[in-house]
Amino acid sequence: MNFYSNVILKLIEEFEKLPGIGHKTAQRLAYHVLNQPIEKVESLSNAILDAKNKIKFCSICSNLTEISPCTICSNQKRDKSIICIVENSKDIIALEKTKEYRGQYHVLNGVIAPMLNIGPNDINIKGLLDRINKDDSIKEIVMATNPNIEGEATAVYISKLIKPLGIKVTRIAHGIPIGGDLEYADEVTLAKALEGRTTF
Amino acid sequence: MNFYSNVILKLIEEFEKLPGIGHKTAQRLAYHVLNQPIEKVESLSNAILDAKNKIKFCSICSNLTEISPCTICSNQKRDKSIICIVENSKDIIALEKTKEYRGQYHVLNGVIAPMLNIGPNDINIKGLLDRINKDDSIKEIVMATNPNIEGEATAVYISKLIKPLGIKVTRIAHGIPIGGDLEYADEVTLAKALEGRTTF
Repeated sequence: MNFYSNVILKLIEEFEKLPGIGHKTAQRLAYHVLNQPIEKVESLSNAILDAKNKIKFCSICSNLTEISPCTICSNQKRDKSIICIVENSKDIIALEKTKEYRGQYHVLNGVIAPMLNIGPNDINIKGLLDRINKDDSIKEIVMATNPNIEGEATAVYISKLIKPLGIKVTRIAHGIPIGGDLEYADEVTLAKALEGRTTF
Repeated sequence: MNFYSNVILKLIEEFEKLPGIGHKTAQRLAYHVLNQPIEKVESLSNAILDAKNKIKFCSICSNLTEISPCTICSNQKRDKSIICIVENSKDIIALEKTKEYRGQYHVLNGVIAPMLNIGPNDINIKGLLDRINKDDSIKEIVMATNPNIEGEATAVYISKLIKPLGIKVTRIAHGIPIGGDLEYADEVTLAKALEGRTTF
């Protein structure tokens, strides 16, 4: 039996398609929307369409941006000799928040995942090679893919392509997170932390 | 410094206004939306507006519905002598799913909460009294507000209004949930469970 009105059901189903939103949360969101004044609901609905319509990929680094090239690529004050490779645009936000990195980025928009039928040609590796070929000033590529099987495999794959071109390829450090506890760290992380130890 | 494009920021802010959605989740949702094909994004955006535009309050019970009176109020097979009082339309869904209740509902659309400046006149109590005055067949009112301070206070307030009219007022049982564990039950729930014990 269907307890919901069809339009409410449709709304719940739409919310359920979002990542990390289960049925209960989708229901709560739907009823919240129904209880809001129409202006606020229009504001939400328009923001969704607006973002989708206005945001495109940067022609240089594939970052999501309103203007192409994006503000990072077109910023002349940033270091042009180093490119940091990330899986998604979101990762750029995380790295920018550190305020430590002043180089360029390159967004793969995915990782090599043979189990999901995603090969090297399905992610933005060709764009990276084109950039390197066109620009002699690039001296270092920092691999900042996620530390999981797919991320590591992608990092290794790309590094093998780039090293022969005489460019330095580095990987961000893995280890115990700041504020973390040795006791609760898994063995792989701990092993990586030992392996990557630095001198005082 | 602003790391996001303005339209992305606006979308993240809109998602953050939803209940239970923090900044990180809002960011994940926004980037998910940006990575979806335009048809799917339109579908979400339209479902939100459509639900808000088509759904209204039932003229009898204040349930959220596409057609007024709602399907429950207009269902002639349902028991007209009993009304269950709930805080929100969502609660009706939860009760309907039990398939145990065949009576009417009345949605308060809120609870009395003096701390939030919500008094008896701000919730739909008048509509309930009107229904009782107009309809002689009503024999029982079941209070199904939530078992917290506001819900209890609202239940007591309404029961005091209705009892003098010669109508039976009942309260749904509180106790140990099925599948729950005595060991982990709080004292108030346990006390309520003892108080409400039934004979085999």
